[in-house]
Amino acid sequence: MQPSERIEAALEQAMAEAAGRTAPPLLAGALRYAVFPGGHRIRPQIVLAVARACGDRDAKGADAAATAIELLHCASLVHDDLPAFDNADLRRGKAAVHVAYGEPIAVLTGDALIVLAFETLAREFDQDSRKLARLTNIVAKAVGSPSGIVAGQAWESEAAVPLVDYQRAKTGALFVGATLAGAASAGVDPEPWRALGQAIGEAYQVADDLRDVLCDAEELGKPIGQDARRLRPNAAAQLGVGGAKARLSGLVDAAAAAIPPCPGAEELRTMIRAQTQGFFPKQLARVAA
Amino acid sequence: MQPSERIEAALEQAMAEAAGRTAPPLLAGALRYAVFPGGHRIRPQIVLAVARACGDRDAKGADAAATAIELLHCASLVHDDLPAFDNADLRRGKAAVHVAYGEPIAVLTGDALIVLAFETLAREFDQDSRKLARLTNIVAKAVGSPSGIVAGQAWESEAAVPLVDYQRAKTGALFVGATLAGAASAGVDPEPWRALGQAIGEAYQVADDLRDVLCDAEELGKPIGQDARRLRPNAAAQLGVGGAKARLSGLVDAAAAAIPPCPGAEELRTMIRAQTQGFFPKQLARVAA
Repeated sequence: MQPSERIEAALEQAMAEAAGRTAPPLLAGALRYAVFPGGHRIRPQIVLAVARACGDRDAKGADAAATAIELLHCASLVHDDLPAFDNADLRRGKAAVHVAYGEPIAVLTGDALIVLAFETLAREFDQDSRKLARLTNIVAKAVGSPSGIVAGQAWESEAAVPLVDYQRAKTGALFVGATLAGAASAGVDPEPWRALGQAIGEAYQVADDLRDVLCDAEELGKPIGQDARRLRPNAAAQLGVGGAKARLSGLVDAAAAAIPPCPGAEELRTMIRAQTQGFFPKQLARVAA
Repeated sequence: MQPSERIEAALEQAMAEAAGRTAPPLLAGALRYAVFPGGHRIRPQIVLAVARACGDRDAKGADAAATAIELLHCASLVHDDLPAFDNADLRRGKAAVHVAYGEPIAVLTGDALIVLAFETLAREFDQDSRKLARLTNIVAKAVGSPSGIVAGQAWESEAAVPLVDYQRAKTGALFVGATLAGAASAGVDPEPWRALGQAIGEAYQVADDLRDVLCDAEELGKPIGQDARRLRPNAAAQLGVGGAKARLSGLVDAAAAAIPPCPGAEELRTMIRAQTQGFFPKQLARVAA
């Protein structure tokens, strides 16, 4: 099975009971709506790629880790789109969950997805406390307070935002979680995989900033110009489009260089280059021309 | 240490890093505000009491289980009070989190408390996969979809609400989670402890319905008359105050009778009677007189 098929199958399996026939129908519908169809599934792709590079000794474990990371990403999108935050009507090219299902169901959908992420890990790793504790801890650190994506979002409520802490937490933390979780699911020490996650996360953030400036809403599948509207720091606004593009190129190289020695390092390097090259908005070709 | 001191100390310990100096200051403040000072801490008291009745072979494990259950309870209060749900300004006699800290921080506080609950379990049970997987599963079932408190809240968005499913999920699930978690933390098969949790949960729901009808807001520390305002089923409205009081007495007896054979059954029975007797609103004395 291709990684993308593995990811969808694992997400379907995780969702079966939570969005099953005994659940409140609107909540069940919103849970599926928030997860399917997905975006590029970049984070779970990274989990599986790192696990494969580490020898892929536990394919089902890697699937569970990838699922947990993607469910938490989906949860963060649902909550970030709420009226109290970005108030975004559009996500992945369709109505945001709170628009389609109402605000109460949207809050609860995010909550239920967070719970489901941890439940998925516990179901898979019930015979291996070292892996279960390690993965739960990795995932919790990537999402919670003081430095996960929830903390990243919370920095936006502060008058003074330390830029590095903000971006590391808001975007970087879940990419770090993805590389660490991939290694941990393969039974390998996750710590050496942190730098790779950080470089991918920073690259993704710069690309997202470029897209917010360059794309139109239809191409992007979500509202544009949100950073300027919300006074959020934006690399393309700070460095100019050319400067941000150069920064992104540098981060792609940094990511490729950050891969620790492992059985599948070369294949992973190729995959990481392809994924991060895909970050470049296609409008950049026009801008550069 | 008394159970109540153990609970506060364990909650403080769990909170230390999440609400520490590297967290965004408003989020850190709101996390502490949502958890301290607490209400009666009934659910973690039940966790510790069940663990003690089962022989209390792992006091620190019981503390972690009690902490996880209470953090999830606090998370549910923060989200339930949001404008999209109860829009309640008052909680535990002070401004609700979204009133004191704003709606974005309130959503994130609930999210972070959910994450912290699972992280607390993983930290304590990192050497015991059976307990960690079991407790994670118990806690996830008590909170998530299809039948935890998140699902209970989601039933309020449905046009037709199956009353038993609604009340079991909305209030009962976390009491069931408390008795199961107490047993599991002591290394005992949790399943026989389900009926006790269900009886306590139903008793609590009837008592809450009575309070919603009988008390004033100042005594209750939260708005009153919410059920009628939100067209929620209410036992006191359906059965009359006398009928609801009789139902509550029956459930207190049922709870005492549901305790499985265990080393500390008698002590637990006394404690459960005292706790559930405490559910009776003191206004009932006036009503009965």
